[in-house]
Formats: sequence, C-alpha cells, structure tokens
Amino acid sequence: MDNQRVVLASRPSGWPTEENFRLETAPAPKPAEGEVLVKNLWLSLDPYMRGRMDDVKSYAKSVDVGGVMEGETVAEVVESRNPKFKKGDKVVARFGWQLYATAKDAMKVEEGRAPLSYHLGCLGMPGRTAYFGLKEIGQPKAGETLVVSAASGAVGSVVGQLAKSWGARVVGIAGGSQKCAYVKDELGFDAAVDYKAGNLHRDLKEACPKGIDVLFENVGGESLDTCLRLMNPFSRIVICGLISEYNLTEPYRYRNLRSVLVNRIRMQGMIVFDWRERYGEALKALTDMYAKGSLKYRESVVEGLENAPRAFLSLLKGGNFGKQLVKLA
Amino acid sequence: MDNQRVVLASRPSGWPTEENFRLETAPAPKPAEGEVLVKNLWLSLDPYMRGRMDDVKSYAKSVDVGGVMEGETVAEVVESRNPKFKKGDKVVARFGWQLYATAKDAMKVEEGRAPLSYHLGCLGMPGRTAYFGLKEIGQPKAGETLVVSAASGAVGSVVGQLAKSWGARVVGIAGGSQKCAYVKDELGFDAAVDYKAGNLHRDLKEACPKGIDVLFENVGGESLDTCLRLMNPFSRIVICGLISEYNLTEPYRYRNLRSVLVNRIRMQGMIVFDWRERYGEALKALTDMYAKGSLKYRESVVEGLENAPRAFLSLLKGGNFGKQLVKLA
Repeated sequence: MDNQRVVLASRPSGWPTEENFRLETAPAPKPAEGEVLVKNLWLSLDPYMRGRMDDVKSYAKSVDVGGVMEGETVAEVVESRNPKFKKGDKVVARFGWQLYATAKDAMKVEEGRAPLSYHLGCLGMPGRTAYFGLKEIGQPKAGETLVVSAASGAVGSVVGQLAKSWGARVVGIAGGSQKCAYVKDELGFDAAVDYKAGNLHRDLKEACPKGIDVLFENVGGESLDTCLRLMNPFSRIVICGLISEYNLTEPYRYRNLRSVLVNRIRMQGMIVFDWRERYGEALKALTDMYAKGSLKYRESVVEGLENAPRAFLSLLKGGNFGKQLVKLA
Repeated sequence: MDNQRVVLASRPSGWPTEENFRLETAPAPKPAEGEVLVKNLWLSLDPYMRGRMDDVKSYAKSVDVGGVMEGETVAEVVESRNPKFKKGDKVVARFGWQLYATAKDAMKVEEGRAPLSYHLGCLGMPGRTAYFGLKEIGQPKAGETLVVSAASGAVGSVVGQLAKSWGARVVGIAGGSQKCAYVKDELGFDAAVDYKAGNLHRDLKEACPKGIDVLFENVGGESLDTCLRLMNPFSRIVICGLISEYNLTEPYRYRNLRSVLVNRIRMQGMIVFDWRERYGEALKALTDMYAKGSLKYRESVVEGLENAPRAFLSLLKGGNFGKQLVKLA
C-alpha cells in the first residue's frame, strides 16, 4: 500500500512558492505493537504552518527539509495494534500532510453530532484557540466592544460568535465585501470593516464609536497598529496570530505602542497548546453552542493532497473564505 | 507675600527648550475656609511631565498654556483653615512648580524616619510605581531574570532592589560607566549594561544568559525593541515609561513585536494612580525596607525654582544621576 506525502523541499525566504514543497510516494508505514495505522480523511491548513517552514527559534520545532509538512487531520483507523482503538474509529491528531500515518495515540472523535471536518475547525484547534484566547485573555464584558481580525476565518468567526453570546458588541475586520457581508449577515456581527477598502482607521473608528475594549488579533501589521490608536483604557489585546508578518523578510514596524502605556493595555500572546489540559472544556462549550444552532461556520475545501501546497499559499494571501481544508478521501 | 511659579509658556514640538517655560511672580494665594496655605520645600521632576506639555489625549489632562506646570512637592503648612492640619505640618501633594499653593487636602508625612525629600522618590510616587508595577504586573519569581531600564533613576533603582529582595536576578540598563558602576556596586544589582556603549543586544545577551523573564521598561524605543528579542516564554513586560519616545515627532518603530506571540509575553501598561487605594501598602513595604537599610537611594538636587526648567530638560536626556529634585526652601 502506497503513502503519498508532501514534504518541505526547501525553506522559503519571504513568500513561499510551490517549489518549496514536493509530493512524494513511499510505502505506507506499518504500525508497531501498541500503534495504529490511520488513513487521513481531512487535512487542516493553518497560517501557523508558515512558521514551521522557517529555521528560526519559535514555540515549536521547524519541519526539517525533506520532512513531512506538519498538520492536523481527521483520520480513520485502518489497522489497530492498540487495544484502545478499533478499525473504523475516527480520530484527530497531528498526522501531517500525507495519506497514511502511524501513531501510539490520538483523540477519538464522536461521529454524528457534527461533520467530521468540524473537528479541524470550529470544534477543533481553531475553535479552542478562540475559546481560550477570549476567555483567559480577552475577557470581554457585556456591552464592551470587541474587534477581531481575519473575522471570516476559522478562529475569527468563532471568536466573534462567542463574544456575541457573552454580550459584547462585535466588529470584524475582513478582506473584501463578500467576506464582510458574510461576517455581518451570516455570523451576526454588529459591524464589519473591509481592510481592502483603504480607509481602515476611519472605517474602524466609525464602526467602534466607543473605542475598542478587546482586540483579538490574527493578522498583525497595519491592522494591529491601527487598532492600537483606538484602544480604550484598560483594554486587552490577544495576540493570536500575525499572518501579515509571516512572509515579510523585514518585520513590520509598529508606530503606536505608546498606547499600551497611556491606556494601560494588557497585550498577551497565546498558543492554544498552553491549555491542552482543558481541551475538554472548550469542546463541550463549542459543541453545545453548535447543537443549539448558534455556531455558524464555513469551510473552503480543495480535493486531493497534491493541491495542498497551492491551497496553503492562497490561504496566506487571504484567498480562502472560511476554514481551509484539504479533502483526502 | 509673593509667589513664584513656572508656567508653560508654549507647547514644544519635539524636544522642549527653556523658552517653553516662563518664571512668573504673583501674589501668593490666600486659603479659603477649609483650606491650607503651603510653602513648597522640594519639587519633584519626573519624565511624565513631558506628556503634560503636549495637547494630546492621554491618561491625564494637559497643562494649559499659561498654566502652572504640574508636579508633586513636599510642602510645609504655613497657614491652616482646615482642622485636619496645623501650621508646621509636612505634606505631599501635587502643588506644582511654584513656591506657594492652597489646597483642601494633602497627604501628611511623618518626619524623622527618612529625609522629607524621600517622599518624592523611593518612599513616594516613584517608589509606589516600582512596587505596584513589580508586584501586580511583573511578578518576578525567585531565580528569574529581571531587566530594568533607567536603572539608576528613581523608579528603576527601587525596582531592582525590590526584585532582588524577592529573589530575582537583576540586570540594570543605564547610560554611562558611572551609573552602571553605581547600579552594580551600590545598589547591588547582579549586572549593569551601558546602553551608550553601542552594543546593547550583545551586552544584554551576555548579562542575561538565561534570557529575560521580567522587563520593567522605563525608556522604550531601542531598549524595549532589543529586550523583546531576549524575552523568555511566559515572560512579562511592565510598560511604565517610554521616555525615549516623549520628544520624538515621529514615533519609534518597533520591529520585534512578534516575540509577544512566539513567547506568549504579557505586556501591560501601568499608571500608578490606578492603585491609589493601596498607597498605604506600598509606603509600609518601602519604609520597612528603608528602615532595615536595604533600600539605597540617590538624589540629584538643583537649588531654586528658576533652575527647574533647565534641570527638567537635562532629566529628559538622562543628565540626572538618581532622583531629580529642586530644592525650593
């Protein structure tokens, strides 16, 4: 049985290209005693993967050149040598950009309550990121104004809906009128601001007449720097992602940091792994919200592992609309 | 009886000059029923005063053009029409850059335990700033590395000594070999780095072989941007002052904000007024420390109100060595 996998062919400098990836065919791995062999059904593509392509110190190890690209998948157990799992079980884990993998352990997912792919999105890592970032750092109170960037994306859409359900006024930043309409009309945000319209400061100011109390930042750069000018006293900034910076060879230069002092802002970086002991709490909250019909969610699907690099490059430019997935089987 | 006072003659653009100030003579005010008349003995000069000269939204109101420059003083009650105070009482309050003032209330200071002027420094606002910033935001744990900028100054020197007493390893950033020697030899910091030596990143890295766990930032600009490169996972940054930015017409542009995400840094701005209900707690802790001889402190004194503007301009360039005071009587 053959495995297909996408490996890192070379490290990018600045924007990656398809040449930085290589599709390989190799024999599928065999599970050792205590392991399972899984077949990946869905692969999640996420902005953090750009960081793994670089050889710089970060919170996680880089992918080696020649190594399989890292990524979370929903998979099916096809062979089990571990009594905890049986053939046909559905699991989620970091099985990478490939068709088959072996593992000692993985998180089982319950079928039937939600589409399997949702465990890579609103009920998975992006959903948990939204939940802990908001609950532990952003802490929006009823009546406060929350702004979230990349608002139509996997994390942003959950952030906004959670904050709405907690009583905040929610403003989303997204690229283009289609995404903005979705954020406002489908997700139910109070306002949406199109960063591509070219008047970000003016438009945000208009959308946030009482200033910003919580900023959930997924993008960074101009977006963050502009929001800094509108932050209220004692406001909070969740630094969840800085996608606009990941492909710059020279970092963005922030002008408005003085606002942190003047407004006594608390700005905090987050990585969802830091709450791994509490994943169950997030899953329960998000699943309940989904079951009540109050968690809207959108996916952007490409088919076939060979198309993963192209879809990933598009994601880095905001080309996706909703959570980006690769359907593998 | 004549009052002398320094008023804001005009607003500066960039670095202020002596022309932005004017020394005036006017009749001393008379206390109304319920008020006291005080004679200022010591005037504190502090970097935050630069902000009050600008007409921009900040956490505190600007000084009006023609208005008396704001500032904290130690004063003596010379006439009391308030039963809480009697002639000869020593008080601390925001009586401004002048010889006489009237007020309804002020904080009495106990004489004898420490020099009166210390209530403008290590036992006053700068001391409280160090105490609450460190205790509530920086939270150094035993064995952690703390870096403080403007280390020989009123706030910085207390920050370092407090952190040492709580078991942290303390590194100070100061300008010039004399201040660095003081920080290390007199204040007992573990290391001192001279930012004027031109190798801030290299020297800091050498002084902090295990990285930085807490940064207490009084300066901003290059100092903060350089420290961002050395911050550890889960480290904290107290944004207490950004003196290097106060005179720039174009703000400093920070390059290394990505460290906040990668290292899950918590960066928080602070203004000591936010803890005003707890000033007594800080005074007790600092007075105890002083009484035990474990709070070293240095003053830089000029005599005469007419010299306040010049001393203030020098302070903005780091020309002071220790807490800058003006002796008025």
